[in-house]
Amino acid sequence: MPRYRLVLEYDGSGFVGWQRQDNGPSVQAALERAVHGLCGETVAVTAAGRTDAGVHASGQVVHLDLPRPYPADRVRDALNHYLKPDPVAVLQASEVGEGFHARFDATARHYRYEILNRRAPPVLDRHRVWHLAKPLDSEAMAAAAALLVGHHDFSSFRSTQCQAASPLKTLDSLTVARRDDRVVICASARSFLHNQVRIMTGSLAQVGLGRWPPARLAAALAARDRKAGGPTAPPQGLCLVGVDYAAPGDRVSRRPQG
Amino acid sequence: MPRYRLVLEYDGSGFVGWQRQDNGPSVQAALERAVHGLCGETVAVTAAGRTDAGVHASGQVVHLDLPRPYPADRVRDALNHYLKPDPVAVLQASEVGEGFHARFDATARHYRYEILNRRAPPVLDRHRVWHLAKPLDSEAMAAAAALLVGHHDFSSFRSTQCQAASPLKTLDSLTVARRDDRVVICASARSFLHNQVRIMTGSLAQVGLGRWPPARLAAALAARDRKAGGPTAPPQGLCLVGVDYAAPGDRVSRRPQG
Repeated sequence: MPRYRLVLEYDGSGFVGWQRQDNGPSVQAALERAVHGLCGETVAVTAAGRTDAGVHASGQVVHLDLPRPYPADRVRDALNHYLKPDPVAVLQASEVGEGFHARFDATARHYRYEILNRRAPPVLDRHRVWHLAKPLDSEAMAAAAALLVGHHDFSSFRSTQCQAASPLKTLDSLTVARRDDRVVICASARSFLHNQVRIMTGSLAQVGLGRWPPARLAAALAARDRKAGGPTAPPQGLCLVGVDYAAPGDRVSRRPQG
Repeated sequence: MPRYRLVLEYDGSGFVGWQRQDNGPSVQAALERAVHGLCGETVAVTAAGRTDAGVHASGQVVHLDLPRPYPADRVRDALNHYLKPDPVAVLQASEVGEGFHARFDATARHYRYEILNRRAPPVLDRHRVWHLAKPLDSEAMAAAAALLVGHHDFSSFRSTQCQAASPLKTLDSLTVARRDDRVVICASARSFLHNQVRIMTGSLAQVGLGRWPPARLAAALAARDRKAGGPTAPPQGLCLVGVDYAAPGDRVSRRPQG
């Protein structure tokens, strides 16, 4: 059974999230339906990141085993055909070794969170940004973000529903940059706790709004208590932009757009 | 009656265009409803550019006269309140002299057309790009675009429904640039003929696809015949990004995003 790796783009707005669930349409179910269209069999697909409801991807990576070999380009084009009209597209498909695992082999996941920071509500990007009308101090946010980088117990930035065995994670980078009326937060780590990026973003917003001094993020981290972290930022500003793999040539990360 | 100038962002997808029409919702009608909400009176609004159905704006400029003075920030915030849930937002509002005219005083209009040039269909930007799966030669397109710049008879790049008195226009600039899997066309002129940017874009796409040599655009221009121009590119890739005015400090152009 040949194994394929796909890079996916999707609009998370209408989905209950990546994972198949009983309460609504999932990206996983949409993709598995398309795979059934291609090969006539029911095949499970495994993703690098199980994004939540409303969260988007421009560089999600999945693997799946097909019952027989197909040219990689045909896999991409046929899946895109069967995915219509779902807002999911296969950007790349390639055949990989049977040992490749999209989730366990990932060495880095890259998320981008976009805040629209202006008085007027969002229109063209209304499903893709968090709107904060009051001016954000992005430099204070950047200073606060730097305090979270490194190997830490991230219990304060973890959903109370998080099922990870350990709250210890290594945050490789967390940056904040202003571009016109946008404040863009980029986070990279081998893996994240549930809602970690959105809780870090909600905490950084408190700093940007002047409600918290930057140092409070270090204190929140030290508290190891969800109550010490900030609010969870809404899902629609978040996008999984890329996933890295260790093997040479296996970097399929996509650079953030725009 | 104090006159105000507004800068608007809107998603043209669900509208029949800027102009009020009997066959569906227009941006103009949505804005006039919001103005009625603000001041309780029916007030006509005048735009710099009458965008077509499906065409977006991130920097449309309009003027209107209110029956009594309001602080400009209140005009902006109140209109944004009454515009909900229509995908239209007032980015800026300012009081201007009674002689200001959004349409007649404009010295330059700036349009941006975005083509998504990859095999996979668009997802996150599906209402905002023209999808062309075959690789485009953006350098050939740029060379062809340069042939259209200047003062010309643009009859070949004008809708047969165009009602302008003269087909003579001065195209100040027309550029084509690739950014990853996007090909972005920027067009600036004091004014354009009906569908001019979309027909120029459709013609440049013929060049990019290798169906026309760049020189054919000079021949098309010389023919002064709509049949010599290329097809009309679809509306959803087009966005009015800014409008310039002559008076000092009156430049309200917005730079293209992303």
